[in-house]
This record gives sequence, C-alpha cells and structure tokens, in this order.
Amino acid sequence: MDAELINPFLSSTKNVLKTMAHTDVVPQKPSVKNHTKAIGDITGIVGMASDKLSGSMILSFSKSCILHILAKMFNEPVKDAIDNEVVDAVGELTNMICGGVKAELSKKDHNFNIATPTMIKGKGVEISYQNSAPTIVIPFKTDNGDFVIEANLGSL
Amino acid sequence: MDAELINPFLSSTKNVLKTMAHTDVVPQKPSVKNHTKAIGDITGIVGMASDKLSGSMILSFSKSCILHILAKMFNEPVKDAIDNEVVDAVGELTNMICGGVKAELSKKDHNFNIATPTMIKGKGVEISYQNSAPTIVIPFKTDNGDFVIEANLGSL
Repeated sequence: MDAELINPFLSSTKNVLKTMAHTDVVPQKPSVKNHTKAIGDITGIVGMASDKLSGSMILSFSKSCILHILAKMFNEPVKDAIDNEVVDAVGELTNMICGGVKAELSKKDHNFNIATPTMIKGKGVEISYQNSAPTIVIPFKTDNGDFVIEANLGSL
Repeated sequence: MDAELINPFLSSTKNVLKTMAHTDVVPQKPSVKNHTKAIGDITGIVGMASDKLSGSMILSFSKSCILHILAKMFNEPVKDAIDNEVVDAVGELTNMICGGVKAELSKKDHNFNIATPTMIKGKGVEISYQNSAPTIVIPFKTDNGDFVIEANLGSL
C-alpha cells in the first residue's frame, strides 16, 4: 500500500476519535504485520469492496484504551469490562473511521463501498486475511492505552 | 432476510463444495442466531457492500469437516491440524461461495461487491456484527462433520 492509500487511515482515525471521544491520539511508525494475532482485546473489522479495490480495515483496542474512549464518548464513568455496549461502540467507531477513509479516497478516485463491521472479542485471536496485499499496522498511543489500525487494500 | 436472499447462500454452498471438494452437503433447518460465539473451529468472514445492501457471510467449519474437505480438494491425505494452508483454503471457499451468491443475486437486481475474506481460528471466539439485520444460520451436515453458513444482509 502506498502513502496515498495509507494517509487517509491516519487522518480519519485522528479526526473520529477527536470529534467523537475528545481523545488525542499519537500515531507511531507504521509497519508490515508479520503475524496473525489480534493485537488488542477488542477488534473491529470492516470490508472494503469495489470493482477495482478489495481489502479490510481493522481497529484493535486495548481494554483500558477503549473503556476510557467510551467514557468520554458517552460522558459516563469508566466501565470495568468489555460488555455489549462496548462491542457495539467498537463497530460504530470502525464504521465511522472507514467512512472517513472512503470519503477521502473518493476524492482521489479510489471508490469503494463499506461492508458491515464484524467485532471479535479476545486478545491473541488468530485473524488472517485472504489478500495478497500486505497488512500495514499503524499503532496509536493515547493517555489511557494503545490501539492499532491495520489495513490491507489492494487493486483487484 | 427473506427467502429470495437466503436461497442463493444454500445453492452456492452446495455447488461450490460439490464442484471443488466432491463433497455432498445436507442443509438443515435455518434459524436466527441468538448468540455471538463462533460455531466451528475455523471461520471465514466476508463483507458484502453496495450503495443499497450491506452485510456479512460467515462460513464456520468443524475441524474434522474442513480437514476432510481439504483432503478431497487437493487429493491428499487428511491432515491432523488446521495449518496455514487450511486457513487459506477456508478463505478461498468463503470467497467462492460468496461469489456464487453475488452472481445469483445480481440476476435479481441485488448487486454488491465482495470484500477480502477474514479468517478467525478458534471455537467459541466471540464474533458480533454491526448490522440491524438478524443473522440467519444455515447448518449443513457432511459425512465427516458439520459446518454452518451465517448471513446477515440488509438494505441500507
């Protein structure tokens, strides 16, 4: 994936978490993922599909990170467990971030539709992708824990 | 999901496994999924997306079932573990079955693109969908174990 495709994932993640959860995120150096384990405790996956492009975006949060983000999103005390409301919110954030990526890439004539997000609970769950494009991992730091965005988006 | 949308999942599954793996499958009664656990030991998920439709198709095999299917696909002895080759084959089968569904539904003016399949290893992994459409489960029996197709496909 070239920078033109990667940058929208960075900017959309920053925008969505700032706007929805008043959370500043600090991106770290992207790398190519060389294993198949879920990095966080709760993971959202969304498929991207068009006649020309196909891929997935993955958003995987540490427990502390997502519980603090939720508390800020809903102006509520920090929960102590990943319950159904947290799972749904991860799906919603996955959807919104991928929606931002879609909007930005459409300006560059890369158009695709977004499938329904799927959420996977559990750290270290083995998740593999049927895609020849390498999976790029972008780690992010917040004041209350880390999360990653993974993306593989390739031309068909 | 009405029968017009469900039937293509049934027929495509039967066709792909017969053609690719010389395996006869016997569909059981479909039901609405009321929990979030992965039913099989290895699961393929694929997103379906268009301007009008959004959803996911899930293919989840018991270990015995997929290892026997693979042996027939590649004319090889039955393996004793779900290795990377098995994971890739599950992605390929997910892709082919969803491709058949896409072809059949396009004849009925339901058009969508298929995202990259994601494969999840592990029985009982918690998988949730960000979709208001109910998830329909279609169980299938083979001579060497069971598998299920799950589908949620809703209008946007």
